[in-house]
Amino acid sequence: MMKELLYEGKAKRIYKTENDQVVLVEYKDSATAFNGQKKADITGKGRLNNEITSLLFLKLKEKGIDSHFIERVSELEQLVKKVTIIPLETVVRNVAAGSFSKRLGVEEGTPLKAPIVEFYLKDDELGDPLVTVDHILELNLATEEEIKVLREKALEVDAVLSSFFEELGIRLIDFKLEFGKDTDGQILLADEISPDTCRLWEKETNKKLDKDVFRRDLGSLTDAYENILARLGGHQHV
Amino acid sequence: MMKELLYEGKAKRIYKTENDQVVLVEYKDSATAFNGQKKADITGKGRLNNEITSLLFLKLKEKGIDSHFIERVSELEQLVKKVTIIPLETVVRNVAAGSFSKRLGVEEGTPLKAPIVEFYLKDDELGDPLVTVDHILELNLATEEEIKVLREKALEVDAVLSSFFEELGIRLIDFKLEFGKDTDGQILLADEISPDTCRLWEKETNKKLDKDVFRRDLGSLTDAYENILARLGGHQHV
Repeated sequence: MMKELLYEGKAKRIYKTENDQVVLVEYKDSATAFNGQKKADITGKGRLNNEITSLLFLKLKEKGIDSHFIERVSELEQLVKKVTIIPLETVVRNVAAGSFSKRLGVEEGTPLKAPIVEFYLKDDELGDPLVTVDHILELNLATEEEIKVLREKALEVDAVLSSFFEELGIRLIDFKLEFGKDTDGQILLADEISPDTCRLWEKETNKKLDKDVFRRDLGSLTDAYENILARLGGHQHV
Repeated sequence: MMKELLYEGKAKRIYKTENDQVVLVEYKDSATAFNGQKKADITGKGRLNNEITSLLFLKLKEKGIDSHFIERVSELEQLVKKVTIIPLETVVRNVAAGSFSKRLGVEEGTPLKAPIVEFYLKDDELGDPLVTVDHILELNLATEEEIKVLREKALEVDAVLSSFFEELGIRLIDFKLEFGKDTDGQILLADEISPDTCRLWEKETNKKLDKDVFRRDLGSLTDAYENILARLGGHQHV
């Protein structure tokens, strides 16, 4: 049976299923950075992110944080609850890095006094600009109450994942989340959580085990992602 | 007597006076835009901004909003209370224009549902980046309470100036304020309020009567500023 494609993004394809509340996510082997200006096909990346995301959503579920995730069904695919994505990227930062360091002149690696939550408008043409609460309200992207929910959920995810990664010898530097609304209008964590969307530094060495390996040409991306998957107790391809 | 220079900015010089609570501001005839990338000397600009700023600070005072302004003492100079400037630019927007329109893809001239307050880090090297409340706290630029005060004062200024300009046939599109702290730690409106720091559009025609005339090469900057000064009832140089 032909799968009916609903949406294709930079890293994933979304297909219809027989259940209209459920969609199939297929992870692609493509890596992109700098708003699509840098691109590559990296064999194994789709499998790694599919499995890592599945394990992290399960971990969150275990700690009482729901997401759209239902189950991983193959190497590249997972079933998720169908949601309408809120067009905001919610970023949590524990340590200064990347665009935060560059924009604000804070040296990469500087621990932040408290986790910082930022919102970016999901709009490739505009280059995903940082937005304030006032902007979000003006653009009708979310209500004040919803922004509060996004913020709280993002900080909950940060608390769970920071301590989980800490146990695995990894520092969770920052990460990006996306949220959606289900048919009841409930806000649900969605998208993926993987080394594509998190900065993960090895605790002892500060070695980068995330997409910065690709962005900054620091070596083998799949080696870094396999390292993360192994620590999470996933299947290893050695 | 030689005036002792305390600080020179892009548009003003600050001098010491005999009273250590008071400084002398001298307005320069220089126009700059795009973070100093576009520059010109424009005879008359200093005089115009000195007088316009004086009239607007007096108007605000009349409406119960204090500022650092004491009095205008010559064509180019005014005495102001000495304050320590908080390194944030506080921007209020009533209508989409300029960087707001560009960053967020909102057509210039679109009225906003409610006035929007934005904060920018005053840092030329970083290009004055937009900052959120979380960023301001992390960088120790102001406390949560102080941010609230900045926001409230900025909206008060907006209410007074919007209705004042409206009476003069002008739409106050957006403007930038700076605040300082006096020796008691009180937050006081400071810097200037002029067509350099406000977008002012003629109500009937939407003709720009502000620094966009310089930024976008729309004609004579001093004609535009003289137009504003005349409406404010200032001295005209015809």
